[in-house]
Amino acid sequence: MIHDFVYDIPVRVYFGKDQLHNLGPELRRFGTKVLMTYGGGSIKKIGLYDKVVSEIRKAGLELYELSGIEPNPKVSSVREGAKICKEKGIDVLLAVGGGSTIDATKWIAASACVDHDAWDFFDPAIMAPVEKALPILDILTLSATGSEMDTAGVISNPDTKDKYGRLDPHILPKVSFLDPTNTFTVSPYQTACGSADILSHIIEVYFNMDSDMYMLDCFMEGLMKTVIKYTPIAIKEPDNYEARANLMWTSSWAINGFINAGKALPWSCHPMEHELSAIYDITHGLGLAILTPRWLKYCLDEKNVGRYVQFGVNVFGLSAEGSPMEIASKAIECLSSVLFDTFGLKRTLPEVGIGEENFPVMARKAVGGDVLRGFKHLRQEDVENIFRMCME
Amino acid sequence: MIHDFVYDIPVRVYFGKDQLHNLGPELRRFGTKVLMTYGGGSIKKIGLYDKVVSEIRKAGLELYELSGIEPNPKVSSVREGAKICKEKGIDVLLAVGGGSTIDATKWIAASACVDHDAWDFFDPAIMAPVEKALPILDILTLSATGSEMDTAGVISNPDTKDKYGRLDPHILPKVSFLDPTNTFTVSPYQTACGSADILSHIIEVYFNMDSDMYMLDCFMEGLMKTVIKYTPIAIKEPDNYEARANLMWTSSWAINGFINAGKALPWSCHPMEHELSAIYDITHGLGLAILTPRWLKYCLDEKNVGRYVQFGVNVFGLSAEGSPMEIASKAIECLSSVLFDTFGLKRTLPEVGIGEENFPVMARKAVGGDVLRGFKHLRQEDVENIFRMCME
Repeated sequence: MIHDFVYDIPVRVYFGKDQLHNLGPELRRFGTKVLMTYGGGSIKKIGLYDKVVSEIRKAGLELYELSGIEPNPKVSSVREGAKICKEKGIDVLLAVGGGSTIDATKWIAASACVDHDAWDFFDPAIMAPVEKALPILDILTLSATGSEMDTAGVISNPDTKDKYGRLDPHILPKVSFLDPTNTFTVSPYQTACGSADILSHIIEVYFNMDSDMYMLDCFMEGLMKTVIKYTPIAIKEPDNYEARANLMWTSSWAINGFINAGKALPWSCHPMEHELSAIYDITHGLGLAILTPRWLKYCLDEKNVGRYVQFGVNVFGLSAEGSPMEIASKAIECLSSVLFDTFGLKRTLPEVGIGEENFPVMARKAVGGDVLRGFKHLRQEDVENIFRMCME
Repeated sequence: MIHDFVYDIPVRVYFGKDQLHNLGPELRRFGTKVLMTYGGGSIKKIGLYDKVVSEIRKAGLELYELSGIEPNPKVSSVREGAKICKEKGIDVLLAVGGGSTIDATKWIAASACVDHDAWDFFDPAIMAPVEKALPILDILTLSATGSEMDTAGVISNPDTKDKYGRLDPHILPKVSFLDPTNTFTVSPYQTACGSADILSHIIEVYFNMDSDMYMLDCFMEGLMKTVIKYTPIAIKEPDNYEARANLMWTSSWAINGFINAGKALPWSCHPMEHELSAIYDITHGLGLAILTPRWLKYCLDEKNVGRYVQFGVNVFGLSAEGSPMEIASKAIECLSSVLFDTFGLKRTLPEVGIGEENFPVMARKAVGGDVLRGFKHLRQEDVENIFRMCME
């Protein structure tokens, strides 16, 4: 069956290498005081910082800055940004960076409009409503999270060891600048992690069998083929424009909501991974890469095997002849080979320094005291089993 | 290479069978005086008219009506609608119907905001600018033109025998209601014509080889496979929700601009077909079905054959082994077989009552005194040759 859905993605995207002259006029639509947010020095190293500042000055805007937003962004950065917004009367936010910078900026935008603490948006006991947010623009420098075109932002709290994602239409960016050349300096490792993240976004939806929207199945298969085709090229030739452009546009469409249409939402691997990176601060895409093939293997049964066969045949070009269970196993092997051999990511949790000591508490938090209702419902013990499968 | 592009499709879509309760609140965002536009009596026959009127009354809105909008909508309907808007001070337009009704409504929305005649927007000697338009909402009843999610509207002028399409962001609908059950009563013939129209929208872009955005090639192949898979089902089982839903969502995405990203725009078959339907008033999709395979055959050469091979292999499942020219010819045969055997559409111009008497003047108008710059540049004599290929 196909559920009713609402499609509504009013983000304007400037895609390409010669679009930055649109930045000043776009910012100006929303006011004159701009808070620019970014991470470490990488945007300075690639010359992007200077270009952005020059466009902002040319437009006669007043510029403030918040740097040092970290990977797996912390609530402390959100608090700091909100404070600047309130003190300076900021009109519009400009995130320059990857998903972490954009996610933090989204929650700065919401926190700037309320009196309470930023973590109140995430604390399960409070879940403060989002009633407005400052307008957000962004310049993307990493193809991975899709934050540039979606309503979600993930924030970590090191004090409570929590990492929560929350969706709200108010924090959707107004305008995103997607210039593939801004990803030319992304390292092979970060490129691989980003692509694993993109693949996971698609797989989480693709394996939710709750829809008969064949046109979206085809699209998802095309997106996965795109990631598989271009990631090794981007790793080998970091300045291959075609590869970077295809990965960049795919990262946005993997998670902007289009492929979800008509499907129930709950995901499985992301909540499990959030527990890994909340405690061990590993790269999100790496955690997903390790978890996804194990999760698929754990969930496979006679009832859902057809979906795995479709995955194997349409994404990896496997022959449809033979036993469905065998084709399904082959499909999972193909995925593992892509992630661990082609992309070169680490295969097990011990290889990234994670032992089993926290599995029970992580599994309990991942299921949120209930079950993970996704492609297959997972209880706490199921999640623990999947974590254990990642040990070797 | 991949050209820079801007992606910007801020249409909100309510997709599904239980969404009409959102109509009143959505209309209310734009004002209180609503002009509802529609064609013949079909929306009354399927009970949609009563449901819409009831929602409008429930919301306390003031309702005006313009009925009788014809297929290949005429400038006279646009003039009539604009007159009502001005006289009654209409705030918002609601088109209920297929592409013809929505196209006419788009230009009513623009004409309501100017003092000059509606045809001044199309007369090549005038091309009056579009500076604003009344907001447009629509309820779609036919999967074909994609007008519900794009910036284009095509209007005919029987006095001058002209038919022109024009694009402008001001006439993009604000909200579209896509309920597949509203297409359950579409006849097998109209279903086939609609699907031929959708296929043509995709093929016009797919065969423009001016881009390396592989992720969009995959998407287009998926859209074509969707049309080919579900059209015969919708013809045989008109109330098959899965088939109607897939065709409906595909019709929107075939032409809303997403697949064009990074590609130069000029099309070939549409300008040629507009000459057919301007003079003979045949159904747009039928004209496209007759033209498209001939156009593909005419354009095929050693340089572009790779694209035809990709089309044959990825859309029709042909084997990639063998001579590229042979695979290409087979791919065109597959397309013909889909259009004329599976969809059951007429194969030649004489079968739809069109002779060759007007070919020279139609060809001259199609190329607009220049050449058709598309996948392959076509001069007037090329267009005449393609018309002649449609004689048998």
